[in-house]
Amino acid sequence: VATTSVEIVTIGTELLLGHLIDTNSAHIARVLADSGVDVYAKHSVGDNTARLAAMLQGALERADGVVTTGGLGPTVDDLTKDAVAAAVGTTLELHEPSVAAIEERFAAFGRPGAITANNRRQAILPKGSVVMDNPHGTAPGFIALRADGKFVACMPGVPSEMRPMLAERFLPWLVANRKLDTAIYTRTLHTVGIGESVVDERIEPLFRMLENPKIAVLAHTFRVDVKIMAKAADRTAADALIAPVEAKLRARIGEGIFGVDDDTLEGALLARLAARGATLATAESITGGAVADAIVRVPGASKTFRGGIVAYDNAVKTALLDVDEMLLRRHGAVSEEVAVAMARGACARLDADVAIATTGIAGPSGATDGKPVGLVYVAVAARDGAPFVRRMTLPGTRDDVRRRTTVVALNVAWRFLDKREVATSA
Amino acid sequence: VATTSVEIVTIGTELLLGHLIDTNSAHIARVLADSGVDVYAKHSVGDNTARLAAMLQGALERADGVVTTGGLGPTVDDLTKDAVAAAVGTTLELHEPSVAAIEERFAAFGRPGAITANNRRQAILPKGSVVMDNPHGTAPGFIALRADGKFVACMPGVPSEMRPMLAERFLPWLVANRKLDTAIYTRTLHTVGIGESVVDERIEPLFRMLENPKIAVLAHTFRVDVKIMAKAADRTAADALIAPVEAKLRARIGEGIFGVDDDTLEGALLARLAARGATLATAESITGGAVADAIVRVPGASKTFRGGIVAYDNAVKTALLDVDEMLLRRHGAVSEEVAVAMARGACARLDADVAIATTGIAGPSGATDGKPVGLVYVAVAARDGAPFVRRMTLPGTRDDVRRRTTVVALNVAWRFLDKREVATSA
Repeated sequence: VATTSVEIVTIGTELLLGHLIDTNSAHIARVLADSGVDVYAKHSVGDNTARLAAMLQGALERADGVVTTGGLGPTVDDLTKDAVAAAVGTTLELHEPSVAAIEERFAAFGRPGAITANNRRQAILPKGSVVMDNPHGTAPGFIALRADGKFVACMPGVPSEMRPMLAERFLPWLVANRKLDTAIYTRTLHTVGIGESVVDERIEPLFRMLENPKIAVLAHTFRVDVKIMAKAADRTAADALIAPVEAKLRARIGEGIFGVDDDTLEGALLARLAARGATLATAESITGGAVADAIVRVPGASKTFRGGIVAYDNAVKTALLDVDEMLLRRHGAVSEEVAVAMARGACARLDADVAIATTGIAGPSGATDGKPVGLVYVAVAARDGAPFVRRMTLPGTRDDVRRRTTVVALNVAWRFLDKREVATSA
Repeated sequence: VATTSVEIVTIGTELLLGHLIDTNSAHIARVLADSGVDVYAKHSVGDNTARLAAMLQGALERADGVVTTGGLGPTVDDLTKDAVAAAVGTTLELHEPSVAAIEERFAAFGRPGAITANNRRQAILPKGSVVMDNPHGTAPGFIALRADGKFVACMPGVPSEMRPMLAERFLPWLVANRKLDTAIYTRTLHTVGIGESVVDERIEPLFRMLENPKIAVLAHTFRVDVKIMAKAADRTAADALIAPVEAKLRARIGEGIFGVDDDTLEGALLARLAARGATLATAESITGGAVADAIVRVPGASKTFRGGIVAYDNAVKTALLDVDEMLLRRHGAVSEEVAVAMARGACARLDADVAIATTGIAGPSGATDGKPVGLVYVAVAARDGAPFVRRMTLPGTRDDVRRRTTVVALNVAWRFLDKREVATSA
């Protein structure tokens, strides 16, 4: 089995001044490690030809190759390319097809005249490089090769340009050039409302049978992901391996799956409500608007979300959500009874088919006898029928408790819709 | 003038698997660069003695010293310390005062019996090290010295332990040992409601006079910071330099300053309202609860914040905020008139002395003739008297527009309180 070791170098003086937090190197490390590449080390260096060249040479002594990002902007890319050429023992030359690609890109944007000498200079590359074209920007990436087969792969520093180049150009090159037999491509199913052990149990027989793709179960805060990882020469081959396994997982896990890859629970929740023609409202105490905010983040939320009430003060719970004062006095604001009353009140006052309510003690103060900091109730109710309530004691700081309650609230709402046909007002 | 060059090394296998984004190295780089240290490069390496030792040796060839974080946990710290000892050419020994400090810390927490052999092992350090005690955790940091005076400074990876150790132990050591003549200590004044050019103008005469401390003006989204940077041997000496300049800046900038260092605008806003005995409410459309959420993040918000209404649907604006239907029809939901009516409605319905209202078009859809995506109105009103309204067109994605509107809303509320004595209901 062919395996490859690399070191990662991020380039840019701003990284050494601490003005920019480097997220690129963690992304590259994760993608490469997932694909079985051995990542020996990561480095950041400024826009300094001599230091960069020395660092690249050092890395090529230790590892099979180097992956770099950044240092390809119009003002600094000459010095990056000089250093790379020096490290692999070659010189720079104009790569004509890349000039044409850059010209095409400007023409496609209707600005053929806007191309500058700097843009053309982006096509000057170390001699003999493999070019990685950049559909998301102008600067091409490239893989410079040393005589002994070791390599320096250079990608732009803009994440939206670097990420697809890494996945769709660099990894396939590693595979095609036998630096790796295969790369690993993934698809992630997001589940909610099922414990990690239950997910494990349901997929266990499948899990043991599989060699490629493999399955991993990843537990997050109140959410479990199932990751399908296929070893393949490219994305198309990987998708062919992933599809039948995904179908089997869906059959076993069922309704608990709310989305894949970049899908969010709030987006899935709104889509499901919209499909039923139902509307949503919120009544928040402890989360103070964070549940509504998460929902409104979804484009097109206005079709389904009517609004919410942040009932932080008890008088507001009574005045705007019709929570009975007696209920507040008897059970306290942080109680199952008040959570349900808040949800019911939000349905009525906001004329919504379904409402989510939160109440709890975020801390640092506010704890009473039998009601510790972190005690939270989440209720979801429709206009009629039985509500859902969940009680829990959440750990952490004020911020932690509030953030976790927001996630729980969306989870409980999803499960409510799972179990119930919601009657709409229409 | 003594100056020092360093390389930064973050230690931990999880960094190479991409499971953790490294924010420590950016913090260290910024603090050191601010103090005039020349940061040559940053590196991350796994928990691997041989590779770490080679990296430290390489870094000590290029720079005067190395600053590391991480690799001091109970399971891995032996191998970090072995590598450091090898790099500076010494061996490990038990540092008795650190054993005593660790024992004291456990006793102070009332758990003297809980100390383990692993905890005691944290006091085993490279011979001749300068110990940096850790008031925020158990593992001490240390500075290992090579015969030629070059150093390796090791700090824990937990940010809340590392940051004070860097500022209060490592920087003063650099100064005391003439690696630096002085370090730079800062104090930041946060202003709101004053343009960058106005701030510049007001402090310009002061600015030109000053050598130490120096002043820098930093513009953020709708906020301007004035940073006072004092060169001094330690924090106490720096504070003595900073205090008179801060007093002069306050006299010139005046009410625009809402806080210092880690203070937030929402915290300052609530404190100012509380000082007047006034209460606050929100009425949000475009921000969908994000303004209320920011306010509730402040501990003790319940004393001042009554609650809010997320009036996403126009029917909710009418039903719960008493916005006149005619107003909505004539001016549209995104208008000055509706923003003011929402704020007034929130004062009345939530029985609050002051209310903040937001309405706008976050996109990607929703633009109409004369009302582009990004158009936003923010209004702040008291129970009576003239309201404040601000209209603006904000750039960026849906998320950007919503996040920026949230900041603007808090800003406008602060300025409103600046200009007006708010009558309380009491």
